[in-house]
Amino acid sequence: MPTGSPKYRLQLIQAFSLSENSGYQMRPMRGPKESMLMNYTAVAPLLADAEWEMHPGPLTPHGDWPVETREEFHLVGAARLPIVRQACESGKYNGIVLLGGGDPGFPEAQEIARRYGIPVTACASAQMQVASMLGSRFSIIDISEAHNMRMHSLVVQYRFADRCASIRNINFPLPRPNHTEPRPVHLEKARFERDGRCDMLDAAVAESIAAIEEDGAEVLMLGCSGAYWMQAPLQQRLREQGWEVPVLEGYRCAIQQVKLLIGLGLDVSGLAFPSDLPRRWRRKKLL
Amino acid sequence: MPTGSPKYRLQLIQAFSLSENSGYQMRPMRGPKESMLMNYTAVAPLLADAEWEMHPGPLTPHGDWPVETREEFHLVGAARLPIVRQACESGKYNGIVLLGGGDPGFPEAQEIARRYGIPVTACASAQMQVASMLGSRFSIIDISEAHNMRMHSLVVQYRFADRCASIRNINFPLPRPNHTEPRPVHLEKARFERDGRCDMLDAAVAESIAAIEEDGAEVLMLGCSGAYWMQAPLQQRLREQGWEVPVLEGYRCAIQQVKLLIGLGLDVSGLAFPSDLPRRWRRKKLL
Amino acid sequence: MPTGSPKYRLQLIQAFSLSENSGYQMRPMRGPKESMLMNYTAVAPLLADAEWEMHPGPLTPHGDWPVETREEFHLVGAARLPIVRQACESGKYNGIVLLGGGDPGFPEAQEIARRYGIPVTACASAQMQVASMLGSRFSIIDISEAHNMRMHSLVVQYRFADRCASIRNINFPLPRPNHTEPRPVHLEKARFERDGRCDMLDAAVAESIAAIEEDGAEVLMLGCSGAYWMQAPLQQRLREQGWEVPVLEGYRCAIQQVKLLIGLGLDVSGLAFPSDLPRRWRRKKLL
Amino acid sequence: MPTGSPKYRLQLIQAFSLSENSGYQMRPMRGPKESMLMNYTAVAPLLADAEWEMHPGPLTPHGDWPVETREEFHLVGAARLPIVRQACESGKYNGIVLLGGGDPGFPEAQEIARRYGIPVTACASAQMQVASMLGSRFSIIDISEAHNMRMHSLVVQYRFADRCASIRNINFPLPRPNHTEPRPVHLEKARFERDGRCDMLDAAVAESIAAIEEDGAEVLMLGCSGAYWMQAPLQQRLREQGWEVPVLEGYRCAIQQVKLLIGLGLDVSGLAFPSDLPRRWRRKKLL
Amino acid sequence: MPTGSPKYRLQLIQAFSLSENSGYQMRPMRGPKESMLMNYTAVAPLLADAEWEMHPGPLTPHGDWPVETREEFHLVGAARLPIVRQACESGKYNGIVLLGGGDPGFPEAQEIARRYGIPVTACASAQMQVASMLGSRFSIIDISEAHNMRMHSLVVQYRFADRCASIRNINFPLPRPNHTEPRPVHLEKARFERDGRCDMLDAAVAESIAAIEEDGAEVLMLGCSGAYWMQAPLQQRLREQGWEVPVLEGYRCAIQQVKLLIGLGLDVSGLAFPSDLPRRWRRKKLL
Amino acid sequence: MPTGSPKYRLQLIQAFSLSENSGYQMRPMRGPKESMLMNYTAVAPLLADAEWEMHPGPLTPHGDWPVETREEFHLVGAARLPIVRQACESGKYNGIVLLGGGDPGFPEAQEIARRYGIPVTACASAQMQVASMLGSRFSIIDISEAHNMRMHSLVVQYRFADRCASIRNINFPLPRPNHTEPRPVHLEKARFERDGRCDMLDAAVAESIAAIEEDGAEVLMLGCSGAYWMQAPLQQRLREQGWEVPVLEGYRCAIQQVKLLIGLGLDVSGLAFPSDLPRRWRRKKLL
Repeated sequence: MPTGSPKYRLQLIQAFSLSENSGYQMRPMRGPKESMLMNYTAVAPLLADAEWEMHPGPLTPHGDWPVETREEFHLVGAARLPIVRQACESGKYNGIVLLGGGDPGFPEAQEIARRYGIPVTACASAQMQVASMLGSRFSIIDISEAHNMRMHSLVVQYRFADRCASIRNINFPLPRPNHTEPRPVHLEKARFERDGRCDMLDAAVAESIAAIEEDGAEVLMLGCSGAYWMQAPLQQRLREQGWEVPVLEGYRCAIQQVKLLIGLGLDVSGLAFPSDLPRRWRRKKLL
Repeated sequence: MPTGSPKYRLQLIQAFSLSENSGYQMRPMRGPKESMLMNYTAVAPLLADAEWEMHPGPLTPHGDWPVETREEFHLVGAARLPIVRQACESGKYNGIVLLGGGDPGFPEAQEIARRYGIPVTACASAQMQVASMLGSRFSIIDISEAHNMRMHSLVVQYRFADRCASIRNINFPLPRPNHTEPRPVHLEKARFERDGRCDMLDAAVAESIAAIEEDGAEVLMLGCSGAYWMQAPLQQRLREQGWEVPVLEGYRCAIQQVKLLIGLGLDVSGLAFPSDLPRRWRRKKLL
Repeated sequence: MPTGSPKYRLQLIQAFSLSENSGYQMRPMRGPKESMLMNYTAVAPLLADAEWEMHPGPLTPHGDWPVETREEFHLVGAARLPIVRQACESGKYNGIVLLGGGDPGFPEAQEIARRYGIPVTACASAQMQVASMLGSRFSIIDISEAHNMRMHSLVVQYRFADRCASIRNINFPLPRPNHTEPRPVHLEKARFERDGRCDMLDAAVAESIAAIEEDGAEVLMLGCSGAYWMQAPLQQRLREQGWEVPVLEGYRCAIQQVKLLIGLGLDVSGLAFPSDLPRRWRRKKLL
Repeated sequence: MPTGSPKYRLQLIQAFSLSENSGYQMRPMRGPKESMLMNYTAVAPLLADAEWEMHPGPLTPHGDWPVETREEFHLVGAARLPIVRQACESGKYNGIVLLGGGDPGFPEAQEIARRYGIPVTACASAQMQVASMLGSRFSIIDISEAHNMRMHSLVVQYRFADRCASIRNINFPLPRPNHTEPRPVHLEKARFERDGRCDMLDAAVAESIAAIEEDGAEVLMLGCSGAYWMQAPLQQRLREQGWEVPVLEGYRCAIQQVKLLIGLGLDVSGLAFPSDLPRRWRRKKLL
Repeated sequence: MPTGSPKYRLQLIQAFSLSENSGYQMRPMRGPKESMLMNYTAVAPLLADAEWEMHPGPLTPHGDWPVETREEFHLVGAARLPIVRQACESGKYNGIVLLGGGDPGFPEAQEIARRYGIPVTACASAQMQVASMLGSRFSIIDISEAHNMRMHSLVVQYRFADRCASIRNINFPLPRPNHTEPRPVHLEKARFERDGRCDMLDAAVAESIAAIEEDGAEVLMLGCSGAYWMQAPLQQRLREQGWEVPVLEGYRCAIQQVKLLIGLGLDVSGLAFPSDLPRRWRRKKLL
Repeated sequence: MPTGSPKYRLQLIQAFSLSENSGYQMRPMRGPKESMLMNYTAVAPLLADAEWEMHPGPLTPHGDWPVETREEFHLVGAARLPIVRQACESGKYNGIVLLGGGDPGFPEAQEIARRYGIPVTACASAQMQVASMLGSRFSIIDISEAHNMRMHSLVVQYRFADRCASIRNINFPLPRPNHTEPRPVHLEKARFERDGRCDMLDAAVAESIAAIEEDGAEVLMLGCSGAYWMQAPLQQRLREQGWEVPVLEGYRCAIQQVKLLIGLGLDVSGLAFPSDLPRRWRRKKLL
């Protein structure tokens, strides 16, 4: 390793971007990379020893509003794959971090990057991995019925069902045309920053305590990246009430996981992500 | 129900189509609907009491060859969703059958069709459902490392892991540019029709017996729709050797399942597939 | 298949019949076949394309009252088996539907019918199969402590424990000599038909909502055939409250499942239901 | 407890008896109680501190040959229940031991005896209980395809699936009319007693070693009571080969378990085996 | 077996002893063996047919107060092992019973005793074994957060997670220096003996009912040996309220289990507890 | 964070040390820290950005030979805890890495360090965590029957049973007095370094391939730290044969995991590792 070359060279890729005219923007879709990364201040220390670029993510194919349904997650996942491939082909990165709470296109991105030996991490997956280091069961504090089902599907697909105590819904769905009484999460965040409290955080505290007392959660993670700003205040509120429970968010977990993998020289198993022309094949695959 | 109106009005949708110039075609991509449905003779009796249309499926976005990797399944799944929506909006169908062995876009299609109260079935899902009616564990006879992982992912996602004894690989990957010694499954089928045997079927017999004797399979299903033609000869070969094991394929299972659901007036649960604006919401989702 | 021959030739078999003098009759035990089939109007459309006969079921061996305990289920199950064999031997049927909520004698009936290649379905089993097509977990709305344990035993035996969110008890036990304050389910049904409501349905609504909100149910099924009449009103009441949850009952599910199997030419796996003199044997059986 | 009164007063009940003229008898069906208990010498020490009676079991309802299929197990199970009730009503016993390898009528017998506070044990159940005290997984050495499925069904019903490594078939089916080349297990036993070896024991040794080496078994139990005589010689043969694995049989396990329960004053939980008129009822039953 | 020789020769070993000067003694640490065995009257009948000795257990290495944390359990477990070895080497015993609710050093003791063919039982393990004979799921009524985690760890380690409905905390932590408001369990016991009730028992009743009604418990066991005195009064209180649920405690279960094993001539599997120089080795160990 | 202060301040603690006179030493027990860390060259890059100290571990309490049995693991685990506490109390470290393949005293160490907010990692645990990031199932390549059981116990305790395909035994037990034909692993390592091959590595290759082909492993980890030197050559040998499977060893995984946790400011959940005087307590703990 030549002296002075940075160890971590990361491509961060947003899940999606909206048009400049969209009335449903919840975060900056363009500008300096730091401005595009929500809650940058909290994340910055973990990026201090890395070179990193930010890709704003694909324009949403489904309409000019955020992603929440199965269909929308599938479509933006597909749209993100060419960006992943391009990042791999560029030769500039030794790790890719998929931003966004619901991991659109994650396993497919891992498959693509496998050909280049580049690890890819994603925010829900990384939180579940870290959660399983901290306690026996975690709950997901999440934002809406539709988003819950995405998280549910990820828990099953990643085989963390035995470790997931519950998915708790605080019911702040992402804004979209058919909503008559939207309560956008970024406005709740602004309210919290102004007033030190907001309905969204109060609901998260209530559901977190229910997850601890009723569902058996020992760790909490956040479902939607639009809710990641709650990590610190939710943790604090719970500590104030005497609950010594860690609260996770996805950006930092995904960044730390990709750094762990880069350090170990690992991406994913070629047996779990075989190429279309594998050197060896197995007669059977067991569950 | 007005007299004479047909009970079942089905839209069948292929997983994908290739261009006319593709060198990797394994089935007719256009023509009369019957010609586009592989193994039509075997399937026809189950369509006799139905009105049905065939959609050839989206042109493959990934390249002019069949679907086999995670990425390819994701991309064609995304490309199939507009076809599903169109079928729902047309008002012409009371059931949709997604053809193809790996169910691209299936849960998303169910979500779309939920808004219209139309049941959707898919070939891998339907086989697993039927298999669980017949015995306690099934094995999947499948064609390649990459395709196996798709089947594996579906088994986990559909929560049939406890019922899946194994996925057995006969290693006849679908043809694609980088294959130097392709053994296309449709040529194996032609060979069987000519000679009464072929390597692919022999391998399927061997892996089926291994699944029975070593893995504990009580039912067999086929992974790739390009292998569905083996259903009858594989069943026969196993019976000849004394194994009283049912062999399934996806087309008939998916058609029968959609008819079952139409008869019951069901599509999917609105709690499993909530809309983006559900009338009621739950505080928690348990695994 | 000769022209004009009916496709489905079904034998329906009640779980049991009581004597003419029993004071505990909840449904007609004899008369035209339509009169013996509870909720005939709702079921009739699914029988329209079938020839069908009704067997009133064996006289209860345990006493002249309905079946509810483990012992009673076992005894009537044993008494039903000769009827199943007779139906198979008659050559008149290509499908058998076991009526009754607790499936007495079901696996044994499948074993008998296996020798004749005739599929058998049963009401609890069929509901669980259909429920698993609609969502990830179901709850059973059931009538009493003793009956709950029967349902519990079936869930375990059919290996649906992972998909069963709960068994909810509305506590309307079937009438029997030692009951001092009976609340027979058929009188509740009569009350509902007269008044548009009754305590039993109210309790079912309450437990259904608890199953959804507390237990994670996405689909509801009914445990006792004496409660199947609630399918439509319970569904309606839940929809009125905004819950988009499917409610199942056993008769229609079992009929649709047997038709699905007849269409596919399947009964059960000969490896799951081996004969006493199988052609091939396996060195091991895995769980 | 009055001085001199025996602590254990046991009713042993055979699974079934054949007629005097049956050509398929494998053990004495009548005579002194000791003569009716197979392998009496090995069992006697455990009965030394008990008063005990032997019931020969019901005459087989299905035909004059041993029990092996699902149907036969169900029918003799039903026929055994009145004997259980009679034993309870007699007031003579404080424990009931159901003999026979496949536990016909066991849960129903527990339900009956619950009303009298009398514990009931059975041979397969007791072996699984003891096996789970000795190691993490057990295999069942069993005699035929049909009998294997009975054992499989019991493993699932008793919820020991996670602890059962495999069911191994040595293929010595019980004699019955349609067998053309019977190899009755009692003749194998006679051969062993005469020659010190026999094919049945050799096969059991081979399958036991396969269970250890391939399936992960740490404990072995025997499926059919007709094979219980192999306990000591199988254990010895395995020890001679260096395998320090315990081999169980059902009679001693069931006797020891009933004595354990009598000493603790326990039978079964009234919540697992509720009466038809329980004093309290629960709103829900969880799996 | 020579006439007159006692069948059961048991060594009972306490989990730990405190110094004479400890201010945290909850039971006599020395004196006649009967006085050292808490609740002797209830246990005595099960020891009537045994010769037995009592070892007071090792002096606590961690400090002069009772065991409750992971660290303390580990340290006293280590300190108990030489006592186990000495008991084995003495040749005086054919069974060892480890007293104490949290089973410190149990699997290691089994490993040691395996070399001598002597069965060892322990109180939590034995209760779980017996509980699984009585119903499908049990709850543990336990005394504190820290002790709960020990019980949780045992449930997982013994592979009873599927059978454990919940661990219920009545929050009466064992006394230790940093407790400002101790509510020692032995004082609660004294209060109950004087007044017929106490807060600890009331809390146990409340949590037991919650375990039954909310968690699905069919059997109850007690976590801490300091709470074993509640077995009879808790059972009685629940029966008075109509709940027919068995309540277990560890001393009697462990004694009965060791007697069961002695009678069967069993200790543990040599494959689960291999020596450091096993006669045979396996290529693989499956979970 | 003051400029220049090192981010990671790690205490590495060996599992045990032997006396200077022991005939069973497999690695240096004292000397410069680098010399005490086996395979230092491979590990060094991951320690480059850390300040670190090495503790040689406690002298073995059980005898002057390496740890392999349950008893030995328990005793050295107990002996390591004071070292952990001392490291925490020193205030010098923000992370602790427990060396050694079998994680003696790990959960107890986590409990101790929780009071100081210091994360602790251990080699088996860390490998399982990393393995679950790379594929769906892993196998453990391990050295002996006794050591296998330790690994088995850890897999169960850490709740990775569903992800562990198998534990494969290459049968190179650690040297100890009763071994007549020892094949010490460090001599095998020396042989490999001299000759480029050795029996131990050959056996590991054979069992790795069996784990892939027969057990369904997608990732491989090493059980004993004495075998960690095989990581690179085993990986290479498998790649040469075409198997694209990652091979892990514990040192690097444990170091990377502790760095991940330090970066996130996490140790473990206070609900999973409650203190003896927690600020809040829960009424129930669910599995």
